[in-house]
Amino acid sequence: MAKNFKELLSKVGEIETKTLAVAVAQDKAVLEAVKMAKERGIANAILVGDEEQINAIGSELGMDMSEYRVIDEKDVVEASLKAVKLVHDGEADMYMKGLLPTGTFLKSVLNKEVGLRTGKPLSHVCVFEIPGIDRLLFLTDVAFIPYPTLEDKVCMINYTVEVANACGVEMPKVAPLAALETVNEKMPVTVEAAKLTEMNENGEITGCIVDGPLSMDIALYREAAEEKGALGRKVAGDADILVFPDIHAGNLVYKSIVHMAPCNNGNILTGTKAPVILTSRSDSCEVKVNSIALAAVVADKMNK
Amino acid sequence: MAKNFKELLSKVGEIETKTLAVAVAQDKAVLEAVKMAKERGIANAILVGDEEQINAIGSELGMDMSEYRVIDEKDVVEASLKAVKLVHDGEADMYMKGLLPTGTFLKSVLNKEVGLRTGKPLSHVCVFEIPGIDRLLFLTDVAFIPYPTLEDKVCMINYTVEVANACGVEMPKVAPLAALETVNEKMPVTVEAAKLTEMNENGEITGCIVDGPLSMDIALYREAAEEKGALGRKVAGDADILVFPDIHAGNLVYKSIVHMAPCNNGNILTGTKAPVILTSRSDSCEVKVNSIALAAVVADKMNK
Repeated sequence: MAKNFKELLSKVGEIETKTLAVAVAQDKAVLEAVKMAKERGIANAILVGDEEQINAIGSELGMDMSEYRVIDEKDVVEASLKAVKLVHDGEADMYMKGLLPTGTFLKSVLNKEVGLRTGKPLSHVCVFEIPGIDRLLFLTDVAFIPYPTLEDKVCMINYTVEVANACGVEMPKVAPLAALETVNEKMPVTVEAAKLTEMNENGEITGCIVDGPLSMDIALYREAAEEKGALGRKVAGDADILVFPDIHAGNLVYKSIVHMAPCNNGNILTGTKAPVILTSRSDSCEVKVNSIALAAVVADKMNK
Repeated sequence: MAKNFKELLSKVGEIETKTLAVAVAQDKAVLEAVKMAKERGIANAILVGDEEQINAIGSELGMDMSEYRVIDEKDVVEASLKAVKLVHDGEADMYMKGLLPTGTFLKSVLNKEVGLRTGKPLSHVCVFEIPGIDRLLFLTDVAFIPYPTLEDKVCMINYTVEVANACGVEMPKVAPLAALETVNEKMPVTVEAAKLTEMNENGEITGCIVDGPLSMDIALYREAAEEKGALGRKVAGDADILVFPDIHAGNLVYKSIVHMAPCNNGNILTGTKAPVILTSRSDSCEVKVNSIALAAVVADKMNK
């Protein structure tokens, strides 16, 4: 079980090396991450885009371009379709966004012929390593599904369990979060959290232990759970997966942690036939490499 | 302007010393905070509750009990009513919870004859000092109003502006938060945030500059605002007041910061005739003292 990104990165070394297809790869920050992922044995890459520009940036970064397959396609939409098709056809294992608008990139992901659609909703999984917490935390969904329905939340849990499994967490503990740890009929989020718990008990959600509603402190910290008399809860102080009420709660927490806490993180998009990496320009190279590593273990798990 | 709690505590030294009325004061953690507040010249206290127990705990803590007025009342409800009446009658300036259930304490706050009700909703203001942010942050509402209406949010902003003013922030910048910084009709929170901005422009919300919706990073960090082309926003990178979409988002962020970030904080209850201190058992002595200091500057401002 990978308890932090260092362990995750070493776990990637034990699996067959995966290949990344990058859409519109002529982006310095993206190529820097591709280079680091290659050097560390995390992933190979096929770079689709403007070959001349890709080679120029690559040389500037000191990349040995003979180690990469480059597919020349100057048109952005075409480049994204060619890149995603590589994953669709099994020539690559995961798909990464380069220098193109998010909307265009997602259109390629959802393309009916060459894309990676499964018919299920796309959802974002964020993985955090936070000092004081002795395990990786998996957050869903801080960036994609605005107001998830109960059905969406079941998908979100399933996707995130798959990611946690890929990181070696076999029976993750799932906390549907709220401001409090008791059901209050006037707070629909708490009712839904209890419903998810019930669905887990009934065998409708499997491969994990769900217990909600839970407040952030009870979900994450044993001492808080003890102090509040919640140690009897199935998920008390040792949640692996945090399910947010909606995108606002999730995103505000995500950005607070990223900016205020000493932490390390990686993100992938799920609900697709293969893992998709959609990092933000503001993500550091380390976050991008973490995301590639995460995608690699997930791709490995999916291929089995 | 107090930029952190050290400055706030020194600001308290410049005003007339305020008096705290403590309901059911026979609580070690509460008396420890009362003692520290007294020693630092932050506040005097009148202790209402079981005199024998109060004196016993006080002696154990090395308090000079001759410095405190103690009102003997063993009945918990009666003790709370006697304590709140001291504030109601102007014998004390702020009201603090001791060893009694929150519900009982709030009943005394809202008591029609001797309480502190104003007819407006009660709301919680949390003040944070966070490394990397060069000012105090005022959060509303992470603990009290579950799903604030637009009208509630106007109250919440007004209350928090008053607290910020008391801390010397004259024209606070207010960020109604969301997952994103643009209005999306499908996300009611963003529409409401824009409405609050408009009300501020129309003069319906005064004494502050409101600009929303804003994401957490754009609201707080100039570099994030710059990166996302949002430097032209009225509140970009220098928000003082953060307005949360609902209690879930607020509480999850609050607990994430408290547990994950190096920080310092204090909290008070507003919407009352005098500031109310309702700290949690899990709050450290420092947080309790910060809360008393906050209440003292707010009481000073209200008395003027």
